Amino acid sequence: MNTNPITDLSRLCIHTITTKPWGIEDAAKNYASNGVSGITVWRDALNGRNIKKTGEMIRQHGLSVVSLCRGGFFPGRELKKREAAIDDNRKAIEEAFELGTKLIVLVCGADPAQSLDDSRKQIRDGIATILPEAEAAGVKLAIEPLHPMYADTRSAINTLAQANELAETLNSPWVGVAVDVYHLWWDPNLEKEIKRCGNNNSLLAFHVCDWKSPTLDFLNDRGLMGEGCIPIRKIRSWVEATGFNGFIEVEIFSTEYWKLNQALFLDNIITAYKAHV
Amino acid sequence: MNTNPITDLSRLCIHTITTKPWGIEDAAKNYASNGVSGITVWRDALNGRNIKKTGEMIRQHGLSVVSLCRGGFFPGRELKKREAAIDDNRKAIEEAFELGTKLIVLVCGADPAQSLDDSRKQIRDGIATILPEAEAAGVKLAIEPLHPMYADTRSAINTLAQANELAETLNSPWVGVAVDVYHLWWDPNLEKEIKRCGNNNSLLAFHVCDWKSPTLDFLNDRGLMGEGCIPIRKIRSWVEATGFNGFIEVEIFSTEYWKLNQALFLDNIITAYKAHV
Repeated sequence: MNTNPITDLSRLCIHTITTKPWGIEDAAKNYASNGVSGITVWRDALNGRNIKKTGEMIRQHGLSVVSLCRGGFFPGRELKKREAAIDDNRKAIEEAFELGTKLIVLVCGADPAQSLDDSRKQIRDGIATILPEAEAAGVKLAIEPLHPMYADTRSAINTLAQANELAETLNSPWVGVAVDVYHLWWDPNLEKEIKRCGNNNSLLAFHVCDWKSPTLDFLNDRGLMGEGCIPIRKIRSWVEATGFNGFIEVEIFSTEYWKLNQALFLDNIITAYKAHV
Repeated sequence: MNTNPITDLSRLCIHTITTKPWGIEDAAKNYASNGVSGITVWRDALNGRNIKKTGEMIRQHGLSVVSLCRGGFFPGRELKKREAAIDDNRKAIEEAFELGTKLIVLVCGADPAQSLDDSRKQIRDGIATILPEAEAAGVKLAIEPLHPMYADTRSAINTLAQANELAETLNSPWVGVAVDVYHLWWDPNLEKEIKRCGNNNSLLAFHVCDWKSPTLDFLNDRGLMGEGCIPIRKIRSWVEATGFNGFIEVEIFSTEYWKLNQALFLDNIITAYKAHV
């Protein structure tokens, strides 16, 4: 089990939402000038931009475009809502293609007006529907299980076991899973399920942040690595034991950190990455 | 599968914390005069009372004392903290005996300063330590798995599968589990795990409330049955399919509802119980 610190930034990726106050141009410039190697682009960061040129801008800074966040939100009690979701996922695939990234992260969705079983079926059907377009665009889809506290409206896929099962059912090299420590750290089956997606060659992304005690907001109070209780390095060792050597993506939603000077916050991210990931 | 509404109140129990603004004397009087049949007593409601006399007072109203809430909180990185927890659990057993109830609900605890594995071992050891005293007092211990959003500080036991495993390991007729829909509704293995504790004769308590969308507070924004997305009646049918015919306990922590006139809130609880449980 490799639990040595990481001493260089060649695998460090940051999500644009982590430094939300920056436009994507400043984010790319500042990530690159500080040695960060990858960027995951949230779709809101592309608003009003030419997507192809934005992808070129990012690469000119020497950054890899690790993934596009996010597709998904398939379930809906109303057919219209489900059809709109399919359209939006098709748009996401086009955007990923334009941007030049090979991966879309799926936050699968849930509708509290119907059962989780129904939402889970609609998620499976939704992914199956867009899969041919993803394949044609050369874009993989990563099912990201979300913490059970989001089972009402954000995702009916709440454990890595469920994500693995779903990926196995869909049985395509274009569908895999994303492991985010924030959503999964509590799960007693986590190591086993990481091995399982490793064996399936379907571990496509690895996201980190931390769980603060207390956490004050359901969405926007994630912690910087090291300031919470998630055994990030241990989980990284499980991920790497599968052979995964891809990017380690820092994804932090934090009202508190968005208020900081983002250049200082970026310094803190890099320090925390070396000390705690 | 029995999914008929319940038309009488012979199985309705309310937790004192649900109507926190009332002292236990008013709670007992008002529950009884409205036809409620059981009460689960939170330990804070006993502050400054003679416990034995309080139990007698409750029974004079014709109410069953369904359980005492709560023991547990076993883990601690420091030995002193763990020893203090054992002392407190011994005190809870004495209180349950004095009060005349046969059940203590365990919120098992967690310490973010150590791994979940360590907390889980300390929980097992803690329960094993107090078990002889529980048996001597004729009091059963119900392991209540808590929602994963409480894994940092409140419980390292976060699924019914874990609670079942722990109860099986301890292997005593004095240890079982409590099923609370708020903590468990999202779990794709819930029906299976309810069957499992049913087969073990270890399903000791059933708690209901609802999950609101959005939920605004991690602790004190639980919903009244019917105003959220939990399939309460479906879960009740799973619980009853095991043969369970004990009390159905309404346990709602809500800053919003604690502000209401509690007599009106009690009316609402009874209406919601008949309509949605």
